[in-house]
Amino acid sequence: MKENRIKKVITEMEKENLSQMIVSSPSSLFYLTGKWFHPGNRMIALLIKSNGDHKLVINKLFPVEEDLGVDLVWYVDTENPVEVLAKYVDKDKELGIDKTWASHFLLSLMDLNAAKGYKNASPIIDNLRMIKDEEEIAIMKESSKRNDKTMKDLWSNLKEGMTEIECVELLEKLYAENGVHKFSFSPIIAVSPNGADPHHSTDDSVLKKGHSIVIDMGGVYNDYCSDMTRTVFFKEEPSEEHKKIYNIVREANERAIAMIKPGVKFSDIDNTARSYITEQGYGEYFTHRTGHCIGIDCHDFGDVSGVNHNEVKPGMIFSIEPGIYLSGNIGVRVEDLVLVTEDGCERLNKVTKELTVIK
Amino acid sequence: MKENRIKKVITEMEKENLSQMIVSSPSSLFYLTGKWFHPGNRMIALLIKSNGDHKLVINKLFPVEEDLGVDLVWYVDTENPVEVLAKYVDKDKELGIDKTWASHFLLSLMDLNAAKGYKNASPIIDNLRMIKDEEEIAIMKESSKRNDKTMKDLWSNLKEGMTEIECVELLEKLYAENGVHKFSFSPIIAVSPNGADPHHSTDDSVLKKGHSIVIDMGGVYNDYCSDMTRTVFFKEEPSEEHKKIYNIVREANERAIAMIKPGVKFSDIDNTARSYITEQGYGEYFTHRTGHCIGIDCHDFGDVSGVNHNEVKPGMIFSIEPGIYLSGNIGVRVEDLVLVTEDGCERLNKVTKELTVIK
Repeated sequence: MKENRIKKVITEMEKENLSQMIVSSPSSLFYLTGKWFHPGNRMIALLIKSNGDHKLVINKLFPVEEDLGVDLVWYVDTENPVEVLAKYVDKDKELGIDKTWASHFLLSLMDLNAAKGYKNASPIIDNLRMIKDEEEIAIMKESSKRNDKTMKDLWSNLKEGMTEIECVELLEKLYAENGVHKFSFSPIIAVSPNGADPHHSTDDSVLKKGHSIVIDMGGVYNDYCSDMTRTVFFKEEPSEEHKKIYNIVREANERAIAMIKPGVKFSDIDNTARSYITEQGYGEYFTHRTGHCIGIDCHDFGDVSGVNHNEVKPGMIFSIEPGIYLSGNIGVRVEDLVLVTEDGCERLNKVTKELTVIK
Repeated sequence: MKENRIKKVITEMEKENLSQMIVSSPSSLFYLTGKWFHPGNRMIALLIKSNGDHKLVINKLFPVEEDLGVDLVWYVDTENPVEVLAKYVDKDKELGIDKTWASHFLLSLMDLNAAKGYKNASPIIDNLRMIKDEEEIAIMKESSKRNDKTMKDLWSNLKEGMTEIECVELLEKLYAENGVHKFSFSPIIAVSPNGADPHHSTDDSVLKKGHSIVIDMGGVYNDYCSDMTRTVFFKEEPSEEHKKIYNIVREANERAIAMIKPGVKFSDIDNTARSYITEQGYGEYFTHRTGHCIGIDCHDFGDVSGVNHNEVKPGMIFSIEPGIYLSGNIGVRVEDLVLVTEDGCERLNKVTKELTVIK
């Protein structure tokens, strides 16, 4: 168990008069224990008690060899795991629930009258995970450094006639050469006009001279995610219209990044990017939020959007990824990860944002 | 919408006096609509009403271009999707919940007093999905046929000195050559004695002459999963002990398959495999259930275990995969998929189970 993190969880539980809560999501369990569990449909629950009497309820099929510093409570497939868990829950107290816990476990626990009440306690963990510690920051920097390297390697290896799917296969190989063995999300490599769909599913469209290419990619390094987007042009200078759109998106990205420092609201950052694009006449074509927090999960809790009025704090890492999407014509997105520092922010991605034509 | 499947759902709802239920899991949504949705953390809910007034509540970020034959209710990221959903839920009636729905949605719905009560309604869909229709059976057969072909291709391409990870990379390539572009689960290729861990994570152990190899692999073809295990020996006849263990597992697999026909209980099938292994003195080393149902999900609802006393029915497809695991020595597992027919069963995997030494 990561004792310093558990201690912070308990401090927050006490502020909310919560004496017990369940953590079940693999990424939060990793955050708190340093170990990945992949129980599939089977129940796993770390019951955190403010009095320190924690239990990890887990199926015998997933042996734990190391000493995790927490009591393990085993069950087998022939037992009802919710009944096993309920034995350790205080019936007279409210129980915090992991937001991702499968509903049927919660419904079974309610049927057993296992606790006095139930509430979503994930905000406690989510808010802690938003602020990265020194160790996490070092890994996140290295993860993005490898993403930068891989983006540049990809640019050097793109060939006319490749399909988007072949580009993704190439990307997988290049990541592996850079010590990154897993995508943090299914990469988007979209040749124009596919880039105009922000969630385009990579297909067998063929890369040709004169295309724009949206490359949205990230890897997992030491359990932490990277995520970056560049939009580049292939073998030919873009038209004046496409240059103009590119430069608007880039400027929106840079204006948003320039204003980030502790105390600024997420919604203000979103507004900076969005209002610049709107002033330029493309507001309706910027169809998504400006960014999202990132860490163990590619989409950690917390987004850079018009409805998140929380202030950013040192140690937070999130994406800044404005875009303009013109259906049937072109899509442009430019995305960096940034780390909030004591007096501003540090960009984790160093790949150029100058308008780039790949030769 | 697959109207015949929806109709069956409503029939089952009526038997349980349930007038409304939510379906949210991607695989069940695919089963009912023919379309995959990947909403990530965002809420998606197909509200099925026994009166036919169904709604699909979905985030605007995931456009639906085709006519799904169901009213679409859109929400945006700035709205609370649970409030949007609650407008269509009958407050005076019980609401069926998808077992996999994230707990925080359910807790929010409860806070809104959206329904009279809540119960896990997934068994309705689970039980329907267990019985494959003609179309599904045809795809499942083709999926396993390609798995058979790929297993044999793998045997022909294994080379001394390859690591397990390299074997998996090779497997991915061979699947692609056979038109299968996705694993149905993370394949297990375990060289002795790694095979003694039934859930071994493939690592950089090196394949050598004299090794046994557990190969547990499956792919996704046309949205349906295959899954098969063979244990083979590499370049050298196994020892008498290993031959003996191999033949016990193979015999357990065959005895279990031989007894399958409509009306037999899952628990009896498990018992047939288990009691044979026990009689041979290895009962304590067969540490998992005998099998699981399979279809759109690699682990569909329903398992072949000592606690599942339901009877098998025509159209069910499940795995038969007994094993013996001797720590530090060897692991052997032999797995086939079987389809229950009107008067017996049909094996979907045709790869030989004769003791095989790869040259």
